[in-house]
Amino acid sequence: MPRPYCKMEPLALGQVRIADTFWAPRIEVNRTGSIPHIHRMLAETGRLDALRLGWKTGDPNPPHIFWESDVAKWLEAAAYSLATHPDPTLEKQVDETIALLAGAQQADGYLNVHFTVVEPGKRWTNLRDWHELYCAGHLIEAGVAHFEATGKRTLLDIVTRYADYIDSVFGPGKRTGYPGHEEIELALMKLYRATGHERYLRLAEYFLDERGREPHLFDAEAAARGESPPMHPQGGLGLDYWQAHAPVREQHEAVGHAVRAMYLASGMADLVAETGDEPLRKACRALWESAALRKLYLTGGVGARHHGEAFGRHYELPNESAYAETCAAIALVFFSHRMLQIEADGRYADVMERALYNGVLSGMSLDGMKYFYVNPLASAGDHHRQPFFGCACCPPNLARLLASLGTYAYSAAHDALYVHLYVAGQAAADVAGRHVSLTQETDYPWDGTVALRLAMDGRARFSLCLRVPGWCTKWQLKVNGKSVPARLRRGYITIRRVWQDGDRATLALAMPVERIVAHPLVADDAGRVALQRGPIVYCLEQCDHPAPVRSMTLPDKARLTARPAPRLLGGCVVIEGTGRTPAPSGWKADLYRRAAEVGRDRPTRLRAVPYFLWDNRRAGAMTVWMARER
Amino acid sequence: MPRPYCKMEPLALGQVRIADTFWAPRIEVNRTGSIPHIHRMLAETGRLDALRLGWKTGDPNPPHIFWESDVAKWLEAAAYSLATHPDPTLEKQVDETIALLAGAQQADGYLNVHFTVVEPGKRWTNLRDWHELYCAGHLIEAGVAHFEATGKRTLLDIVTRYADYIDSVFGPGKRTGYPGHEEIELALMKLYRATGHERYLRLAEYFLDERGREPHLFDAEAAARGESPPMHPQGGLGLDYWQAHAPVREQHEAVGHAVRAMYLASGMADLVAETGDEPLRKACRALWESAALRKLYLTGGVGARHHGEAFGRHYELPNESAYAETCAAIALVFFSHRMLQIEADGRYADVMERALYNGVLSGMSLDGMKYFYVNPLASAGDHHRQPFFGCACCPPNLARLLASLGTYAYSAAHDALYVHLYVAGQAAADVAGRHVSLTQETDYPWDGTVALRLAMDGRARFSLCLRVPGWCTKWQLKVNGKSVPARLRRGYITIRRVWQDGDRATLALAMPVERIVAHPLVADDAGRVALQRGPIVYCLEQCDHPAPVRSMTLPDKARLTARPAPRLLGGCVVIEGTGRTPAPSGWKADLYRRAAEVGRDRPTRLRAVPYFLWDNRRAGAMTVWMARER
Repeated sequence: MPRPYCKMEPLALGQVRIADTFWAPRIEVNRTGSIPHIHRMLAETGRLDALRLGWKTGDPNPPHIFWESDVAKWLEAAAYSLATHPDPTLEKQVDETIALLAGAQQADGYLNVHFTVVEPGKRWTNLRDWHELYCAGHLIEAGVAHFEATGKRTLLDIVTRYADYIDSVFGPGKRTGYPGHEEIELALMKLYRATGHERYLRLAEYFLDERGREPHLFDAEAAARGESPPMHPQGGLGLDYWQAHAPVREQHEAVGHAVRAMYLASGMADLVAETGDEPLRKACRALWESAALRKLYLTGGVGARHHGEAFGRHYELPNESAYAETCAAIALVFFSHRMLQIEADGRYADVMERALYNGVLSGMSLDGMKYFYVNPLASAGDHHRQPFFGCACCPPNLARLLASLGTYAYSAAHDALYVHLYVAGQAAADVAGRHVSLTQETDYPWDGTVALRLAMDGRARFSLCLRVPGWCTKWQLKVNGKSVPARLRRGYITIRRVWQDGDRATLALAMPVERIVAHPLVADDAGRVALQRGPIVYCLEQCDHPAPVRSMTLPDKARLTARPAPRLLGGCVVIEGTGRTPAPSGWKADLYRRAAEVGRDRPTRLRAVPYFLWDNRRAGAMTVWMARER
Repeated sequence: MPRPYCKMEPLALGQVRIADTFWAPRIEVNRTGSIPHIHRMLAETGRLDALRLGWKTGDPNPPHIFWESDVAKWLEAAAYSLATHPDPTLEKQVDETIALLAGAQQADGYLNVHFTVVEPGKRWTNLRDWHELYCAGHLIEAGVAHFEATGKRTLLDIVTRYADYIDSVFGPGKRTGYPGHEEIELALMKLYRATGHERYLRLAEYFLDERGREPHLFDAEAAARGESPPMHPQGGLGLDYWQAHAPVREQHEAVGHAVRAMYLASGMADLVAETGDEPLRKACRALWESAALRKLYLTGGVGARHHGEAFGRHYELPNESAYAETCAAIALVFFSHRMLQIEADGRYADVMERALYNGVLSGMSLDGMKYFYVNPLASAGDHHRQPFFGCACCPPNLARLLASLGTYAYSAAHDALYVHLYVAGQAAADVAGRHVSLTQETDYPWDGTVALRLAMDGRARFSLCLRVPGWCTKWQLKVNGKSVPARLRRGYITIRRVWQDGDRATLALAMPVERIVAHPLVADDAGRVALQRGPIVYCLEQCDHPAPVRSMTLPDKARLTARPAPRLLGGCVVIEGTGRTPAPSGWKADLYRRAAEVGRDRPTRLRAVPYFLWDNRRAGAMTVWMARER
C-alpha cells in the first residue's frame, strides 16, 4: 500500500539489481569484508556475550548503554545483504544473534543489557542521556529488515513485544517521555508499515508531539539528579543539543547533535507521509533547507562542530575541524530520501547523491574494514580510518546503507517510474498495470552517459522520470535513437508516452571538470575554490605532490583535465593541471613575513583524486578547498 | 644582586614611570576599574568568604580547588598598583584579604580551602588534576610582590611558612611529586630571590627535575584511582597535556595546555638564570622557538586548540576556532621576557611586544571590566567579553600584568641600559656607577619617532641599547641632533660612548602599513593576507562595513592609508582602502555554485581597526586575515 501523502514509493531491495563497476564491488566488499569484520568486532568487544546477561558487579567491561544499537545495525545490514545475496554462514550468525537477543529480553518485553545487569534499578530514569529508546529503535529497524528479507518472524516478534512494552509505559495517561537520542520514531513508523498496527504510528506521533513541550522534561530530569551548571567557560549543552528546545512543528533550523537531528527529521517525514500533517511538513522542509542549503559541506557532510557533534550556525563550515560524522551524512541520506518520496523534487536527490558519493563513502576504507567517524575537508595528515570505535555507530551504519543501496535508486508511482541514481543494473516494478523491467547501462559516476532499456509484458502509458542532477548544466535525451524535446521540472525529465517492450532511452549528462565556490557567507571558503566532476568532489592528497598541498593555489586560467586512472585506488578518474605553490626560499625561521618580500608562487603539477578515496595511500595532508588565483 | 647567567636585569617597578597616551590610561583604567571590579567579583562569587573556612557539607557553592589562585593574582595586581600609585582604600582591602588568608592557613602551614573544608582527607592525592601547588605558586608570587611593593611581611610570612611546609612534604627522600598545573616553580624562584634562602631554589629544581620521569607519577596516580580510558572516539588527554611526557631537559616542542607549558618554561628559564644549566637552557630555547616561530598567532596568541586549551601541531593556527587564551599570551610574555634577560636577543622582545599590543590587550574591554578568555582571529559575531568566569584566571592575570607593565620596558646591566618597549615616561637606573634618568617622548605605537633624553649626576661611558623592532625595516638614529652610524645586532642598536647630562638620542622607526603573509605551512592562512602597522595587528569589524567582512578580498594593488582616528575607540589609527566583495546577486538559495557563474567581485570601502580593540562596538563578524587578490 503506497503511503497516502507520498508522490512515489521506493522500490524494495528485491526489485533492484546493482551490476555496475562502482557500487557492486563496494557492496561485495561490504558483504565479504565489512559485515564479517563488524561481527568479529562485536564479538571481540564483548557486545555479543553481553547478551547472555552474565556480567556481574566488579567484572571488567560492563555492557554499555548503546551496545544493542551496534548489534542491531549489524543485524539490519546482514538482513539487507541476505535479501540480495543468500549466504548460509551469515544467516546462521544472524539466527544465533537473534537467539541471544531473545534470551536477553525480560519477561515484560524490556530489552537492554546495561539496565538489566549493570544498573537494574535505573530503567527509564534518564531519557536524556541514556540510550534505551535509541537502542530499541535500532532493534525494531533490524526486526523489520530481517522479516522483510527472510520472511522469518523471530526478530520481529522480539521487537514487537518490546515495542508493545514501551507503548505500555509511555503515552497520554502513562509516563511522559521522549528520547534524548531520536531513532525510535522512524523505527516505529517502519514497524507500523510492517505490521499494520496503528498503535506504533500513534506511539511515534506521541514521542514527536511531546518533544520540546514546556515544562521541559529533560530539565526536570536533570534537576531531579541534582545537576549543577558546569564551571568551565566553554559551557555545556543546551536543550537544542537534543532538539528538545521547542515543539517539533516549531523547529525550523537544524541544530544540535547532527545524527539525532536528522533521525528525528526522518521520523517526522515518515509521519507526514502517512498523515499529511501540514505544520509538520513545513517543519521538515525548513529543517531540510537549513541543513542542506546553509549547513552542508560540499561533500554532503553535516554537523560542523566537534563540540556536541553538532550543527554549527548557518554557513559555519570549517574544513580541517569539520566533524561531519559519517552517521550524520547517512542520516541526511535517510531524511532526503524520505522528502524525495513526499515531494518528488530533485533537490532532495541531489543532496542524497552528494552525500552518498562523497561524505558517506569516505567513511570506509577501500578494503571495507577501516572507518572514519569524522570526515574533515582538510587534514594535516594525522587523521586516519580506524578498525572500530568504543562508540561504534558508524561502521554498521555504513554497512546497512551499502547493503540496502538499491532502494535509493528508483521509485514507482501508479503510472510513473523514477530513476534517481544512475547505477548499471536492473529494476523491476509494476507500473500502470504492467510489469516493467528497466535495464541501466552506464559508467556513472565516471561518465555521464546512461542507456536505459525497457522490458515489458505489454504496452502501457506511463511516465519515465529521469533525474538530471543539479551539477549538470548540459544534457541530451534520446528515445529509441531519436532526440526528443523534454522539459526539466524540479530536477526530473518526465517522458510520458506509451512504452513497449524493447524501448530505449539514452540520457547524456555532460560531465566537465567544474570549479566550485561557496556562498559568500561561508567564511572558511572565502577566496577558495574546489573541484567537482559529476557527483564526485575532489581533493588534493600530499602523496601526489612535492609541495605542501594546503598552500597550493589554483589560477582561474589553469587548464584542468579529467583522466581515467583505472589502476589507481580501485579505478577512478583523476583531475590534472598546473597549480601554483609558494616559493620555499627565504622563509628560514620566520612564521610571518611582509607580502612584498615573498617571491611569486611557482607553477607546480596538480593531481586531484576523489575525496571519498583519500587516506587509502601514504599518510599525508589533504585539502578539498584551494586558494583561488583570479 | 644580578643573576649570574643573565645579560641584564629588568628595572624594578619603582624605577619606571609610564606617562604616555597609550598605556597610562589603560593602567589607570586597570587601577580604578579592573582591580576594584575583580575584588567585587571575588567577593560576590564567595571566593573571599570561603577563606573564613565556614563552608560545611551540604552548603551551596563549595570552595573550588583553584579559588586561592584568583585571590592571589588579585593581591599581586593590587600590590603592583600600590607600588606605583598609593591608594589607602586598596591597601585596606589588601590587608583584609591577607588577614583572611592568615586565618585560613593551617597549623602546619598548609593553605587551600577546598582541601581543608570540602575534601579534607584528600590533600596531595591528585597532583595531576587538583591545583594545590598551582595555587601555592600564585600565593607565593603575591607574597613577594606585596613585600616588594609595601615592605610589609604579612603575606610574605604566610607564603614562606606554606613553602616551608611544601618543602617538608616533597623532595628527595620525601614524597615524590610535581604539579599538574605548573606555576610553583617560577614562584619558588621569586621567593628565593626575595629571601635569599636557597632551599626554595632547590625545591623548584626538584619539581623541574622530577617532571616526566619514568615510571610516570600521573599514570600511577590515575591507576590508583581506578581510571579507565574514555569510551568516546575523540579520546582524552595524554601526558603531554601536563608537559609530563618527558623530562624537561628533553622537551623541545611546546605541547599540551598552553598556559601550563609557558609557566613551566618560565620556571625553567628562571633556573637557567641562576645556575646556567646548559641542557635546560637548550630546552628553553627550543620550547620558545617551537612556540614563537611555529605555533604563534600573528596576534601573539598561543594554544590553538580548544580541546585541552592546548598547543596544536606546528603551523596549526586556525582562526575562528583559535583558543589563544589570554592567560597563554600573558604566560608567553613572562617566558619571552625571561629569555630576553638571559640572551639579550631582540627576537624575544619582538614576541613580547606582539603579544602585549595584540593578543594580551584584546583580553580586556575598553572599560577594563569585561574579558576575553579566548581570543580568536575571526568571529561570526557571537564571541564577546564577559564580566567574569567560573574559571576566572584571565581577569586578574591581565590586571597584574598591566599593573607591572613598567618592568617590561627597560633592563640594565653593569654598563648598559636597554630600552625594550617605547613608552613615553621615565626610567631611572644606576649604570656604570652613575645615576641615570632616561626620559622617553613618543606617540608609540601610533607613531615610530622616539626622543630620548638623559639626566645624569656625572659623565660615564656606557651603552645605550635601543631596540629596533622586527617589524621595522627602515630607521634612523640621531645623537644630539646628528645622524650617527649604528649597527643593528640581534635586534638592538648599541650606542657606546661617554654620556653626559642632557644628551639626547632620537630613533625614527618607519611605520608604514604592511601586508603580512603567513608561512606556507600555515594552511588556514593560505592565500590570505593580514594588515599590521608598527606592532599593531589590524582586523576588519562588521560594523564598519556593509558587506560581509569575512568574504572580503584585498587586492595586492589596493592602496592603503593609515589615518589617525582620535575619537574612535579611545583614540587609534585606522587603515583605509578599497577591498573587493562578492557580488551578492545570483546566490539565492544556493550554497555552492560554479565559479564561472558567479560575477566578479565589486569594489568596497575597507576600514581596518586595531585587533585588540575589536568587540568594543556593535556585535558583528571580525577577521584578521583576508583573501588576497594578486
